[in-house]
Amino acid sequence: MPYVRIEILEGRTEDQKAAIAASVTQALVEHAGANPQSVFVVFDDVAPQNWATAGTLVSRRNAAPPLPSASR
Amino acid sequence: MPYVRIEILEGRTEDQKAAIAASVTQALVEHAGANPQSVFVVFDDVAPQNWATAGTLVSRRNAAPPLPSASR
Amino acid sequence: MPYVRIEILEGRTEDQKAAIAASVTQALVEHAGANPQSVFVVFDDVAPQNWATAGTLVSRRNAAPPLPSASR
Amino acid sequence: MPYVRIEILEGRTEDQKAAIAASVTQALVEHAGANPQSVFVVFDDVAPQNWATAGTLVSRRNAAPPLPSASR
Amino acid sequence: MPYVRIEILEGRTEDQKAAIAASVTQALVEHAGANPQSVFVVFDDVAPQNWATAGTLVSRRNAAPPLPSASR
Amino acid sequence: MPYVRIEILEGRTEDQKAAIAASVTQALVEHAGANPQSVFVVFDDVAPQNWATAGTLVSRRNAAPPLPSASR
Repeated sequence: MPYVRIEILEGRTEDQKAAIAASVTQALVEHAGANPQSVFVVFDDVAPQNWATAGTLVSRRNAAPPLPSASR
Repeated sequence: MPYVRIEILEGRTEDQKAAIAASVTQALVEHAGANPQSVFVVFDDVAPQNWATAGTLVSRRNAAPPLPSASR
Repeated sequence: MPYVRIEILEGRTEDQKAAIAASVTQALVEHAGANPQSVFVVFDDVAPQNWATAGTLVSRRNAAPPLPSASR
Repeated sequence: MPYVRIEILEGRTEDQKAAIAASVTQALVEHAGANPQSVFVVFDDVAPQNWATAGTLVSRRNAAPPLPSASR
Repeated sequence: MPYVRIEILEGRTEDQKAAIAASVTQALVEHAGANPQSVFVVFDDVAPQNWATAGTLVSRRNAAPPLPSASR
Repeated sequence: MPYVRIEILEGRTEDQKAAIAASVTQALVEHAGANPQSVFVVFDDVAPQNWATAGTLVSRRNAAPPLPSASR
């Protein structure tokens, strides 16, 4: 019955997703007693212009000056 | 005020989504007293390589051998 | 395989949720060809202080003056 | 640590998203004491055929007759 | 940067969640090259009356007769 | 039409949420041309045992030794 949603920067291959889905499902079976048949895993590929941390889009991160709050 | 998110395997037509949205909204009006104007329905089309059950991506499901956990 | 998330103001009874879940599942079976066994519906009860529209929390809506943008 | 998900009709530019992400992050820093480094903002661009209000897809909204529930 | 949301039937202990979070994070590091510092995992404990499969709430599942669609 | 979901560590007051909802709505009006009436903001209060970063639950963060990946 567990449902898992994974939002990740686009560009992961199908092989990478297959390995992640298998590992995450195994973790829920092993640590939460889940029935593997009922574990759902959904991936959401997020484009760099659709993700921001520290107030800056990832697509603009490389060009940005050092973040002030990281300076201490 | 209800918000409904529907994650579904990609490939549904606009007609199918229109019918689903109408039915879901009607269900919330009828059974929860919702104002139809305030019911939001969002569809998320999920690609087969972005969805896994039982630890296997849907895109690899057909080629896979029978699932062990279904054997009992 | 469809997954449905319903965020709704808290206070719905179990009977209401049961009726909604049945109707939503039926809509996906009828209009999208879903296998009912694989339809997941999750409800998220949202408290009035955790929901805002037009910039105002629902918990403060009743006490608020008429919304300017509704005046026309 | 706050995570913010913004589902919005597709068509917003990267500049618009950059401005929104900056403002939302600032709001969480100012009003919730969040560390800007730990604020995540994710945008989800929703197509008009994937969004419905009042039981009608946005992609079919313009062609629709006036909504009955708005008449009172 | 990955964000993982895990919706699971309520009742898991903190120890179980700790083990799941560690395993899921490790899977993203190993298979997707994620920086562990940037992996966010959020659990959402779902009550039995807030989860339905096959159109029936989990809270009413035990009392229900065998599901027709499972019979074939 | 924008829908905004904010997942934040539990403990924010109603006043804080009111201020955040107002600011976020204003940001969407100003930068995305949204109609304020159609902006939905939902808060999800997350308990410390339901949130992990770097593979460790927040509820266990204080007791944890320094994170290895932060050492460089």
